[in-house]
Amino acid sequence: MRFLTAGESHGEALCGIISEYPSGVKIDIDFINSELSKRQMGFGRGMRMSIESDEIKILSGLRDNITTGAPISFLIYNKDFKNWENKKVDLITNPRPGHADLSGKIKYRLSNIRDVIERSSARETAVRVAIGAFSKLFLKNFDIYVFSFVEQIGNVKINYQVLENKIHRNFNPEKNKKDFEFLSKIENSLLRCPDEDAEKKMLDLITKTIKEGNSLGGSVKVFASGLPAGLGSYIQWDLRLDGKIAKSIMSIPSVKAVSFGLGEIAGDLKGTQFHDKIYYSKKEGFYRKTNNAGGIEGGMTNGELIEIKAVIKPIPTTNIGIRTVDIKTKKETLSLKERSDVCAVPSVSVISESMLSIELVNEFQLKFGADNLEEITTNFKNYIKYIKSI
Amino acid sequence: MRFLTAGESHGEALCGIISEYPSGVKIDIDFINSELSKRQMGFGRGMRMSIESDEIKILSGLRDNITTGAPISFLIYNKDFKNWENKKVDLITNPRPGHADLSGKIKYRLSNIRDVIERSSARETAVRVAIGAFSKLFLKNFDIYVFSFVEQIGNVKINYQVLENKIHRNFNPEKNKKDFEFLSKIENSLLRCPDEDAEKKMLDLITKTIKEGNSLGGSVKVFASGLPAGLGSYIQWDLRLDGKIAKSIMSIPSVKAVSFGLGEIAGDLKGTQFHDKIYYSKKEGFYRKTNNAGGIEGGMTNGELIEIKAVIKPIPTTNIGIRTVDIKTKKETLSLKERSDVCAVPSVSVISESMLSIELVNEFQLKFGADNLEEITTNFKNYIKYIKSI
Amino acid sequence: MRFLTAGESHGEALCGIISEYPSGVKIDIDFINSELSKRQMGFGRGMRMSIESDEIKILSGLRDNITTGAPISFLIYNKDFKNWENKKVDLITNPRPGHADLSGKIKYRLSNIRDVIERSSARETAVRVAIGAFSKLFLKNFDIYVFSFVEQIGNVKINYQVLENKIHRNFNPEKNKKDFEFLSKIENSLLRCPDEDAEKKMLDLITKTIKEGNSLGGSVKVFASGLPAGLGSYIQWDLRLDGKIAKSIMSIPSVKAVSFGLGEIAGDLKGTQFHDKIYYSKKEGFYRKTNNAGGIEGGMTNGELIEIKAVIKPIPTTNIGIRTVDIKTKKETLSLKERSDVCAVPSVSVISESMLSIELVNEFQLKFGADNLEEITTNFKNYIKYIKSI
Amino acid sequence: MRFLTAGESHGEALCGIISEYPSGVKIDIDFINSELSKRQMGFGRGMRMSIESDEIKILSGLRDNITTGAPISFLIYNKDFKNWENKKVDLITNPRPGHADLSGKIKYRLSNIRDVIERSSARETAVRVAIGAFSKLFLKNFDIYVFSFVEQIGNVKINYQVLENKIHRNFNPEKNKKDFEFLSKIENSLLRCPDEDAEKKMLDLITKTIKEGNSLGGSVKVFASGLPAGLGSYIQWDLRLDGKIAKSIMSIPSVKAVSFGLGEIAGDLKGTQFHDKIYYSKKEGFYRKTNNAGGIEGGMTNGELIEIKAVIKPIPTTNIGIRTVDIKTKKETLSLKERSDVCAVPSVSVISESMLSIELVNEFQLKFGADNLEEITTNFKNYIKYIKSI
Repeated sequence: MRFLTAGESHGEALCGIISEYPSGVKIDIDFINSELSKRQMGFGRGMRMSIESDEIKILSGLRDNITTGAPISFLIYNKDFKNWENKKVDLITNPRPGHADLSGKIKYRLSNIRDVIERSSARETAVRVAIGAFSKLFLKNFDIYVFSFVEQIGNVKINYQVLENKIHRNFNPEKNKKDFEFLSKIENSLLRCPDEDAEKKMLDLITKTIKEGNSLGGSVKVFASGLPAGLGSYIQWDLRLDGKIAKSIMSIPSVKAVSFGLGEIAGDLKGTQFHDKIYYSKKEGFYRKTNNAGGIEGGMTNGELIEIKAVIKPIPTTNIGIRTVDIKTKKETLSLKERSDVCAVPSVSVISESMLSIELVNEFQLKFGADNLEEITTNFKNYIKYIKSI
Repeated sequence: MRFLTAGESHGEALCGIISEYPSGVKIDIDFINSELSKRQMGFGRGMRMSIESDEIKILSGLRDNITTGAPISFLIYNKDFKNWENKKVDLITNPRPGHADLSGKIKYRLSNIRDVIERSSARETAVRVAIGAFSKLFLKNFDIYVFSFVEQIGNVKINYQVLENKIHRNFNPEKNKKDFEFLSKIENSLLRCPDEDAEKKMLDLITKTIKEGNSLGGSVKVFASGLPAGLGSYIQWDLRLDGKIAKSIMSIPSVKAVSFGLGEIAGDLKGTQFHDKIYYSKKEGFYRKTNNAGGIEGGMTNGELIEIKAVIKPIPTTNIGIRTVDIKTKKETLSLKERSDVCAVPSVSVISESMLSIELVNEFQLKFGADNLEEITTNFKNYIKYIKSI
Repeated sequence: MRFLTAGESHGEALCGIISEYPSGVKIDIDFINSELSKRQMGFGRGMRMSIESDEIKILSGLRDNITTGAPISFLIYNKDFKNWENKKVDLITNPRPGHADLSGKIKYRLSNIRDVIERSSARETAVRVAIGAFSKLFLKNFDIYVFSFVEQIGNVKINYQVLENKIHRNFNPEKNKKDFEFLSKIENSLLRCPDEDAEKKMLDLITKTIKEGNSLGGSVKVFASGLPAGLGSYIQWDLRLDGKIAKSIMSIPSVKAVSFGLGEIAGDLKGTQFHDKIYYSKKEGFYRKTNNAGGIEGGMTNGELIEIKAVIKPIPTTNIGIRTVDIKTKKETLSLKERSDVCAVPSVSVISESMLSIELVNEFQLKFGADNLEEITTNFKNYIKYIKSI
Repeated sequence: MRFLTAGESHGEALCGIISEYPSGVKIDIDFINSELSKRQMGFGRGMRMSIESDEIKILSGLRDNITTGAPISFLIYNKDFKNWENKKVDLITNPRPGHADLSGKIKYRLSNIRDVIERSSARETAVRVAIGAFSKLFLKNFDIYVFSFVEQIGNVKINYQVLENKIHRNFNPEKNKKDFEFLSKIENSLLRCPDEDAEKKMLDLITKTIKEGNSLGGSVKVFASGLPAGLGSYIQWDLRLDGKIAKSIMSIPSVKAVSFGLGEIAGDLKGTQFHDKIYYSKKEGFYRKTNNAGGIEGGMTNGELIEIKAVIKPIPTTNIGIRTVDIKTKKETLSLKERSDVCAVPSVSVISESMLSIELVNEFQLKFGADNLEEITTNFKNYIKYIKSI
């Protein structure tokens, strides 16, 4: 599955094309729109989020909401466009530290930093979330689920005890009521946070930070359940699934760190402490009771949950400005104050799900084919049968 | 520049092919061998390191040690091969948690886990280090240097005060004597550690851990100096340089976390604290006094040092074994005790340099061409001249 | 430069995304539309061509008609859509020999052959022609021109004497009036044919074939002028420019043969007859008086015109039908009679220009960079200067 | 399956790496060597062929001649190397028209044309033939066979009547004795020619041309039998199998034209004449009685034989020389007289089989997976069962 995204933050529409998405998959447009809307939610988002309420308009690739194998193209109109369409474009010369502004201007020799901003804006991630939604709709057919939550905003972290027994290797929100309830709580919370107490403190911090004119970062956890062992490979460096996923997640604007399982503190532990002992039961086959590896060993899925942490830097655009240099005068000035969010961590949580889902579809296609859902299902089931026979 | 690696841990030789390496580059074979040897050093490495002393044998791509543009192929003979050549291959059925053993066996339907081990072994990284050495030899022509050190082994971390003023945006070990001395100290230390006190504690910890039959992880920092702003891009997700580098580093066996600059704690800071203020001077052009971003903003180099942290899990092979399951009997057993290192952190430091160097050559080629050093140099210099003219 | 195309023949719109198109290129929308219109012209085109008059709607990547480096996305609306939008989709079960119908149905497990037809239709090539137009607008900055004509329709071939001295190694329709006139004549002819006498016979043949309910193929010649030596490479099989171009041209629906220069009869000649002797003059540098190689030697441009021939099979859809099998009943029947052209050779002439232009942009970017027109121009000029200095 | 080749014509060894070749495939080394030897045979080959008798030395990827999934690396030693090793390298300044010499020198800025010749030499194709042999060994498991013959040398063509009924849609040399005999005759002939009378004339022509100091081209036909419908795709231009194969075949040194089925004369025929009528029988399923399309419709296999024609230009190196220019003096001179073949058409026949086999493995892997032969076989068989159920 290949895809390209296009579109500017204040252009008429964002645009995406997905090529090599299998035929025969039922596409639930409402689901895609709900994913788009999840990306837009979260306390601390800028005014724009009330202007835009993203909706996908699919141009090709479907007949009666079933994919035909043809490339899927779609638009997400920028409702804000009408406010910009006939506006004179202001010349922007005060690049924001932390953003693409200065390097982008240099690279593409653009006289107006506005032309960098328009494409480097995280608005582009709406297209990725749409493609992620298509990916999830595919994965669902194999009982594979990708989910996430906000772990930290600013210096407020969740209490990990709230997660106890909530996240487990057979997580399945469609078949397990408890899993559904756990996920629902996250999806319905203002900040995609599973810990109500922490969330309250986060909301307070955001309110305070808005007043300061400053911005916040944080971290998210992303998971995938239902994956068989053996996706990815150790045989060539660029086939390692952890490498591919790391690229996908790090490619999300603002993400500055990616780790798997206990990755961040993997260096502190000894071999016997870190590695996930192998068990076997008739029902589960080979399995683990811990998941420090985050579901990846030797560049491959090991049958456990994929578990990723992404750390998100604070948003570069701040209302109080940050010291910068005017690129024309070379004099000190304050960075551009573009209307912006104060905290985008909940959005990154959603976008991370999308990027992980996309990678998983790609791995799936490498192993089970890419043409048609029925064919892929047959191949997948035969692989599962084989694993059980080991 | 594309490359493929091949070869098993106890096969006759490892093999690498590099395609699209520019013509006209002088290749210093001794330098490549010294890089290979750096990968092998470090207290805590297994007995094998005394058997092998890797040397590259180049088969093609050079005339009188100058590249011709033709693909470079090379071998690294496994001196250990003679000990394995006529040995009966033992059947291995007790997969090591933390390694490719179990998932690799499942994926490729191999009856003997030995066949997974042979390729998933970190011995493969010798080829990457050779390719990294070719990459460094290319980058040197542009005063670009990649270097690294060990930051942590087990629970022992360096004291960051030892680094004060040592690492700076114009780091250049060939032109700056202090930089040369700083690097030499690292290269000559037993653990690639810049802090002698910490290193002593690390050595003690390793000795103790060897006695325990356990293993250790840690973390490394990797840097690149001399890069102009504008490598990488924000215009399409998969062009982001931080994403590409994250993939490269995460693809190193044992790496479980990758971050840029202050990435790991980026979530704790507010916008005005995290982002690197922009300054300007005639001599430096646009520059920063801090480097929390680790040299990447908007998926592009910003002209500062690239600064990466990689966290390394402890080695999965331990002398006391880890609980696992025999894949034939499905009974509990202890994991394979293969001759192995106890701590590979210094090696990962070297391999990280290689992977970063390779990515940087690729970015260079995208922007300045890939055919010939002289041509690339002309294009590069014109770009630098343009940047100075902004 | 990467691109994806999407869209069905009778969907709302075709869609294209171009990624990595350089910034700073002036885009002439009228030119793009005129290219789209050239694709649609030609006597023997079906009724649809009078319904559609393709126009590009660009959604992103431009500011004031100058590219910004951001991906270019665009739509071409299907004016025919309104006639299909609310129509019940007929079930099609009689696959056309020569088309994707039967194999596409099998591959993607589509119950209605209509869903194959919609995407496999040559209507998709409108998007390629738009991307080809962007490519031409880029290449024009380097005095590189791509042009083509129809050489044969059915059994009527041009008399090659009409071309005498018309096509030459320095062909440049903007700087040379004779070249402009020659091209204009082709562009203004009904069948893109440089030989008026042959064209009359072709028109007669088409009229006759329409009456018969049959269809016609033919052949086209495609050229590129202004290319320096050294694009493409011999060092790895998949870098050979003739291979890449062959793929591009063969990927045009209906093309069944591709050759370079005298390629088709290359086997009949001896070495001293076939190979283009090398000459040198101060003004031209190294040059040839013949061009049997079609401008490619050793997988690289040699500084002469690129000259390609593509042979086009007759259109599979015919009014009298072709024997086929009903995929439901397995009984003999006649193939689908979809409204269609009788002869698409002039269109393939235009599409071939597009595909060749796209490949040339890609080669250009590999050698001279892809970020910004000014930067690429500097690099290109320095290469030309170098060649002159040899 | 990816691969890279490396090695110079007179270097120590050629080298190849194949990555992502499935595990579980039995490798017959003798078969690979016999393929290598087939490439070297043919009357009209230069003296070198008697020096070299290529043999593969496999370095990795196999255990007991069964693939393990690990990359396969191998060497083919140049026995001629010992004659060149300590020889002073002569400066070559008289580029051969028709070869990479001049453009390669320009592109890579090489002072000695020798350095172009060493890599652009067709000797590199030995590696491709080895990789083709691995591909054939894989395809054989699915009763897919690739074969070829010489159709023309110079102006001597075979009489097509000798082929009558010999080549058919179910061609299988292992199960059908007549097919085996037909193939054997070709393999055992001096020029891979199925027509004894033509072959005699070809031999005479070669002898005569050797005396003249000139060289010869010709043409070959390449076939693949046993492929199911639905490999390749129409949904995106670069997925079309005819495009991919055209690239592969055109990438063979000396090939100047590629066509499918009756491609060369496709333009002369009308729709009802060209297109292959569709039939159905219980035993064969959907099938054709003609194969003008050469087995590809809509960019996909249609279940018939793939049938390709490649036209080969005469060898650029001739004993009487061709007018060229000395690159130092710019004076007229005669082209280099390197020891060379007079006619390489039989070799190209063998290399074409290799390139086609490689492409087919790639398509197979896209549709049926790439990890393990048993898994791929299951997936393939289920697809065949599905096709039969239509």
